[in-house]
Amino acid sequence: MKKTFILSLVLTAVGTVFAQKEPLHPGYPIDPVPFTSVKVTDHFWGQRLKTSREVTIPLAFRKSEETGRIKNFEKAAHPSEDYKVEGFSFDDTDIYKTIEGASYSLQTYPDKRLEKYIDSILAIVATAQEPDGYLYTARTMNPKHPHDWAGKERWVAVENLSHEFYNLGHMIEGAIAHYQATGKRNFLDIAIKYADCVCRAIGNAPEQKRLVPGHQIAEMALVKLYLVTGDRKYLDQAKFFLDARGYTGRKDAYSQAHKPVIEQDEAVGHAVRAVYMYSGMADVAAITGDSSYIKAIDRIWDNIVSKKMYITGGIGARHQGEAFGDNYELPNLSAYCETCAAIGSVYMNYRLFLLHGDAKYFDVLERTLYNGLISGVSLDGGSFFYPNPLASDGGYSRKPWFGCACCPSNISRFIPSLPGYVYAVKDRQVYVNLFLSNRAELKVNDKKVVLEQETSYPWKGDIRLKVLQGNQPFGMNVRIPGWVRGSVLPSDLYAYADHQQPAYRVMVNGQEVEGELHNGYLTIDRKWKKNDVVEIHFDMLPRLVKANEKVAADRGRVAVERGPVVYCAEWPDNDFNVHTLLMNRRPELRVVERPELLYGLNQIVTDAQALSYDKAGKLAVKDVKLTLIPYYAWAHRGEGDMEVWLPMEVNATSAQPQKGVKWKDNGFFNNK
Amino acid sequence: MKKTFILSLVLTAVGTVFAQKEPLHPGYPIDPVPFTSVKVTDHFWGQRLKTSREVTIPLAFRKSEETGRIKNFEKAAHPSEDYKVEGFSFDDTDIYKTIEGASYSLQTYPDKRLEKYIDSILAIVATAQEPDGYLYTARTMNPKHPHDWAGKERWVAVENLSHEFYNLGHMIEGAIAHYQATGKRNFLDIAIKYADCVCRAIGNAPEQKRLVPGHQIAEMALVKLYLVTGDRKYLDQAKFFLDARGYTGRKDAYSQAHKPVIEQDEAVGHAVRAVYMYSGMADVAAITGDSSYIKAIDRIWDNIVSKKMYITGGIGARHQGEAFGDNYELPNLSAYCETCAAIGSVYMNYRLFLLHGDAKYFDVLERTLYNGLISGVSLDGGSFFYPNPLASDGGYSRKPWFGCACCPSNISRFIPSLPGYVYAVKDRQVYVNLFLSNRAELKVNDKKVVLEQETSYPWKGDIRLKVLQGNQPFGMNVRIPGWVRGSVLPSDLYAYADHQQPAYRVMVNGQEVEGELHNGYLTIDRKWKKNDVVEIHFDMLPRLVKANEKVAADRGRVAVERGPVVYCAEWPDNDFNVHTLLMNRRPELRVVERPELLYGLNQIVTDAQALSYDKAGKLAVKDVKLTLIPYYAWAHRGEGDMEVWLPMEVNATSAQPQKGVKWKDNGFFNNK
Repeated sequence: MKKTFILSLVLTAVGTVFAQKEPLHPGYPIDPVPFTSVKVTDHFWGQRLKTSREVTIPLAFRKSEETGRIKNFEKAAHPSEDYKVEGFSFDDTDIYKTIEGASYSLQTYPDKRLEKYIDSILAIVATAQEPDGYLYTARTMNPKHPHDWAGKERWVAVENLSHEFYNLGHMIEGAIAHYQATGKRNFLDIAIKYADCVCRAIGNAPEQKRLVPGHQIAEMALVKLYLVTGDRKYLDQAKFFLDARGYTGRKDAYSQAHKPVIEQDEAVGHAVRAVYMYSGMADVAAITGDSSYIKAIDRIWDNIVSKKMYITGGIGARHQGEAFGDNYELPNLSAYCETCAAIGSVYMNYRLFLLHGDAKYFDVLERTLYNGLISGVSLDGGSFFYPNPLASDGGYSRKPWFGCACCPSNISRFIPSLPGYVYAVKDRQVYVNLFLSNRAELKVNDKKVVLEQETSYPWKGDIRLKVLQGNQPFGMNVRIPGWVRGSVLPSDLYAYADHQQPAYRVMVNGQEVEGELHNGYLTIDRKWKKNDVVEIHFDMLPRLVKANEKVAADRGRVAVERGPVVYCAEWPDNDFNVHTLLMNRRPELRVVERPELLYGLNQIVTDAQALSYDKAGKLAVKDVKLTLIPYYAWAHRGEGDMEVWLPMEVNATSAQPQKGVKWKDNGFFNNK
Repeated sequence: MKKTFILSLVLTAVGTVFAQKEPLHPGYPIDPVPFTSVKVTDHFWGQRLKTSREVTIPLAFRKSEETGRIKNFEKAAHPSEDYKVEGFSFDDTDIYKTIEGASYSLQTYPDKRLEKYIDSILAIVATAQEPDGYLYTARTMNPKHPHDWAGKERWVAVENLSHEFYNLGHMIEGAIAHYQATGKRNFLDIAIKYADCVCRAIGNAPEQKRLVPGHQIAEMALVKLYLVTGDRKYLDQAKFFLDARGYTGRKDAYSQAHKPVIEQDEAVGHAVRAVYMYSGMADVAAITGDSSYIKAIDRIWDNIVSKKMYITGGIGARHQGEAFGDNYELPNLSAYCETCAAIGSVYMNYRLFLLHGDAKYFDVLERTLYNGLISGVSLDGGSFFYPNPLASDGGYSRKPWFGCACCPSNISRFIPSLPGYVYAVKDRQVYVNLFLSNRAELKVNDKKVVLEQETSYPWKGDIRLKVLQGNQPFGMNVRIPGWVRGSVLPSDLYAYADHQQPAYRVMVNGQEVEGELHNGYLTIDRKWKKNDVVEIHFDMLPRLVKANEKVAADRGRVAVERGPVVYCAEWPDNDFNVHTLLMNRRPELRVVERPELLYGLNQIVTDAQALSYDKAGKLAVKDVKLTLIPYYAWAHRGEGDMEVWLPMEVNATSAQPQKGVKWKDNGFFNNK
């Protein structure tokens, strides 16, 4: 099964591999345990998976119909100069991405009606494909007057707005998922045909055009297509797309084309494009062993986690260009933190774990997962954030769909893949990376190991891991999360208050396990036998976090975390304006269980103060009870004020003033 | 007298002009009324002039002796390889500048003993001059091992650290003052000889070196020397120094050599060098009529007053390079605001008034004068600030001297020249620019006009201007200050609270004068006769000022002004830490006269709050009485806390916290 390691990153490992032209490279040193091998029985994640299946995916298909995204393929089958090509040049991908998510769902929850529905869509998609494989409805439906972004001819605008390669990338990802899930080639054949069309047209040969994707993703996808088909040209094409970058027409930082990829060392430009590219670099490097790729993505990862990542795991600070900001540019109210960028960050961190075997990548991944990623979809699965800001003045809420629908369709494909991130295996070492109730089947030394996790994580810090099958010696590597080890992120970007170091304890069959951590893991190497029980305990103290002083937006402020969950102050839980809050300098943080609230969560409560101005224009201080909820749970009860970073220094507050001095209006005063 | 207009900027108009080779250009369109024609009878400025005469100038001579500055000339007369050349390469100028100040003093207060002392020093200075005129003790005393900054040979380091031209500039300024005051040529001949040496060595001719001053001032000085001697070569040399700038070896912004002077449009680099250069450009432009110079300094002036000037008139935000900061970079605690830069700003603004006849330049000049300039010297004339910050955490006080003594010696020469800034004349128009008790003799239409001002300005807003002589028609142009007209500076950098617009009233012989202001002046054009009385009244409301929101350091803060005086909160007047202050949003500002305090001043008092933390780490708010004193008067009662910009928004306060949360020390937290 070694050959499908990369494939199984987001897919099942049960895929059939085509006739191979040459032996496939073994890929990443660590093997994922695919999501199909992990049956989630968890309350927290079970609810998310259920809404994904029952709400998000059906919604995405329905919206694709309602908004003409499926109609576009029908139009492309019968081109006309009368068609006005509207929407976005990448609207096709929402179909591909939703089919990808639906395919994962089908593997776990077979559904003949859904499978038939997908086939009916694919029949329409097939009709839109031009004879040579080109499939891009934004041009094909009206070649004389294609989409404004498509360019007059094929490819000419692909480095800018055209998205012809971006569409290919999502098509391949969707097609492989569909093939793996159903065994049917109807989508895969379409994707291969389009991939071949691109491989013919684009490359280094004299008759080819030397162009790279304006929006990356084809790199990752083509590596997967190589692993599914065994055809090396797809790997070569992925490598070409990476290596030609910075040498072709477009050379700007927006799409990471400002310099050759192996020379890059700072995360810049459009955040989603960036992390998709870094993930593609990891994939190619895992197969080709190209250390210059790995050095570059290691440098860039250091830059992100030490200077450009929000405490929620969110990345991409700027609305302008949907881009990474400068180092330490992490505004809260205007934080962009696109949901797609959080998903891409998970892709990148997972790949770096598979390369390096260090738990620090999972610390970033877990932080992203529980905070800045799932905040992107409502608890009922039916509405979405595009940006995920860390503060709100009201007027911001999740929406059921967007004109640019990348985030909902990315949620559609990501959430069902989540169980695939729980375990991994390298030789005789098993990695336990995430904590959620599940039952999983692993292969260790080609022998089956069945594990059962039981936990109320992230609300409680006790995890019971039982060996249901697996009479053999192997190492069980339990990740001790960064937040237990005193590290908010693997960097000095954030720090915990130093008297609040929680502890952990691991027991096997009631006997405490001692031992140093290696790369963030506690290794229990023993001859396991059926019914062995590993009990893991993490202290779940609510804790204060402070940002590096270089982060201007967070100066004088603290954030509150408990376990992997970042908290926020939202208006429905508090009888004062949360923007007027002042934290006590030594707050006592109390945990309150609220199983009835928002599918069940823990609140954190503390005594604090609220600042306001009295009628005479003097400051008034009021004692208040501050109630915090998990960040991901905000904006489910109407629009209103929210803050993640809570003022602990007076000079960080924004006590909303009443009337005061009137200033001469020179046009520059921010009159309050 | 037209030919000495420029000369009389800082000199008497009584100077004898040498045999002229060609007719002198008339110079500035407006004629100054020189300080020798204005006898100050004022309490406020009389005290400053007295301490300048009795304390500052004698102190500067004594320190020059004690610190070896005079000894350096003796050493240069008898060079030796044994001399270790220490101090600064411009120490000679402290002598020149103090002689300049002493000369002004001699003109108003003849003092034979002082005159004789100066002669004795000049005898020593003369011995240090090399046969060809070169006078630079930092090299001459030990030509083989000159001062580290002097360069191995003459001139080679003059664009960097050598100051050979800078010394020439101050020498000329001092020599002309001495010549004007005493009629003696002993200093002037030395200066001419050195000027000729420089004119021979430096220029565009093939045998000459093409070099410009690293530190400007020779430009202004050489124009004066042209006007005194009538020898055009000095004017040409001044113009060469300006026009060659940006084309020679050094091309950095530090000394304004980053581009040709006429292309410059932003004030950058070392602030003193900058304003000296802009003043020199104005001087050359006034004579040559070169409009490209004028356009450049107009642009630069706009940049300064709209983006780079403190409310005190201080300029040069950065300690690093003693330099202008970026636009809106105006930190308070670390404000540099060198005393010399304030003096140079007065030079520049005065020249722009003489060119353009607009009162806005006097608004800047007056603001600088009453605040950021006189703060540079203690009320007793015996100690000095080099930087003039707008906030203090303690540990900062005036010192009796500095290794780099430019500021004390500049104060020595500036203060006695102050009466020369009160009036000006253009044809039949008289300008009344400053308000202080004095008696002045003016020439209008070649006929004598004698005016008498009586006022308690800046403490009271009533000025009585009496015509003692002058039976003729002329225009009396009374400057209505910017602070009366609602303009803090001629820009939108600062603004007054809009309900506090003060009024003014002008009466002639008891009859109110109506009329529009022109360029900030109220013109009373009538046939004047002896004993006519002009009564001017300015409302003297204490007023709140807010900075443009782009000035980060002042956000959420207000400053308090009354008349031309900026106030500050200093520790001795307040029973709470002034850094913990929070202003009431609608403060009532009351004026308290304190004739016994610090030579007499008005305080401003208001109710306010002070913020602190209680033992439980919670914010505590205390009602306090806030007492403000004029900014110039701070640091006379020991070292301690001071603030000009007072928090009015909670988020601008710095309530000093008691103990709170302890943070993991990552090396970047500013633990309080």
